[in-house]
Amino acid sequence: VSLLPKTVTNLIDEFAKLPGVGPKTAARLAFYLLTKSIDDNRKLGEAVLALRENLTECGQCYNYAESDPCPICADDGRNHRMLAVVEEPLDLVAMEKSGFDGVYHVLGGVVSPVNGVGPDDIRIGQLIDRVKNNVKDYDEIILATDPSLEGEATAMYIKQYLAPYDIRLTRLARGLPVGGDLEYTDEATLTRAFEGRKEY
Amino acid sequence: VSLLPKTVTNLIDEFAKLPGVGPKTAARLAFYLLTKSIDDNRKLGEAVLALRENLTECGQCYNYAESDPCPICADDGRNHRMLAVVEEPLDLVAMEKSGFDGVYHVLGGVVSPVNGVGPDDIRIGQLIDRVKNNVKDYDEIILATDPSLEGEATAMYIKQYLAPYDIRLTRLARGLPVGGDLEYTDEATLTRAFEGRKEY
Repeated sequence: VSLLPKTVTNLIDEFAKLPGVGPKTAARLAFYLLTKSIDDNRKLGEAVLALRENLTECGQCYNYAESDPCPICADDGRNHRMLAVVEEPLDLVAMEKSGFDGVYHVLGGVVSPVNGVGPDDIRIGQLIDRVKNNVKDYDEIILATDPSLEGEATAMYIKQYLAPYDIRLTRLARGLPVGGDLEYTDEATLTRAFEGRKEY
Repeated sequence: VSLLPKTVTNLIDEFAKLPGVGPKTAARLAFYLLTKSIDDNRKLGEAVLALRENLTECGQCYNYAESDPCPICADDGRNHRMLAVVEEPLDLVAMEKSGFDGVYHVLGGVVSPVNGVGPDDIRIGQLIDRVKNNVKDYDEIILATDPSLEGEATAMYIKQYLAPYDIRLTRLARGLPVGGDLEYTDEATLTRAFEGRKEY
């Protein structure tokens, strides 16, 4: 595609590095920006460059934040006795939308031997440190890692590390997704849904 | 999502303005960038900001270019007697990949009454000007607008405007897409494929 201007091919290349963006989508995005005003382009470019500005990590939950502690950890109105352990900041956002009102610990990944990620490579140690000397401060620790192989493995590691301490550990329920279709539900999910069935 | 840092929500908002990027994808992209190095982020941001730098429009074909005439129009090795009329620069890229070796005229859109785009709003006039006094310079003008309602209408307009001049007009063949499946081909395409059938 050397017949395109260098600035255009360069932007296509950069867009194509984003997850889920192939070369065709990248080209479409770049040409779309060419149809927008220079001012609109500048807003996007500057938003990318500004992303890390004033950005820090909350020393308590390790979520991205502009202040330490972050607004969630600093909020006395929340239930600090409920601690949800999530993989990534986007999982925290999902939990918030579901109405969870406790506090968080963001692991920053999952244990994944295939990808060379061990328990020491994510913030499991920090979680243990946070909990072990303050067991009485928590009513419950919700292991809200993904219902995937790696998420399960990570939850198992955390369970083992926290075994010596007298603290209630829970895991989010597995079952049929709301609005889902039984016919198209995979076997493992249906097995879990059956095991977890409730009185009606 | 006010619990996310302002720079993050701002970038999510900007990404969400891109075509085909919903709020969830926008969030995923922003958080992806947070996992990359500041240097990687800067490359993308600067590529967006640099997009319009040194960018001009070729005065002959109206494609985006760094020089005027553009490398295609300036290339004596190409067949300047074959002129392909396309809607957008990306269509030109597709034509190039197919091996077309002539020159182009980029309309910059299609006639679309629904969207309030008339023949004067795209570069049909420039095409007529380019051709009418130089009819002898062209063997063929290929109307390579999309095989859509609007692309057809645009081709019809051009045909009408060029009717007074003795010049060969062609349109790209409609038919079954290569690798396609007859069973799943829509009626209109199949009708066209039948009409355009060839001796075998």
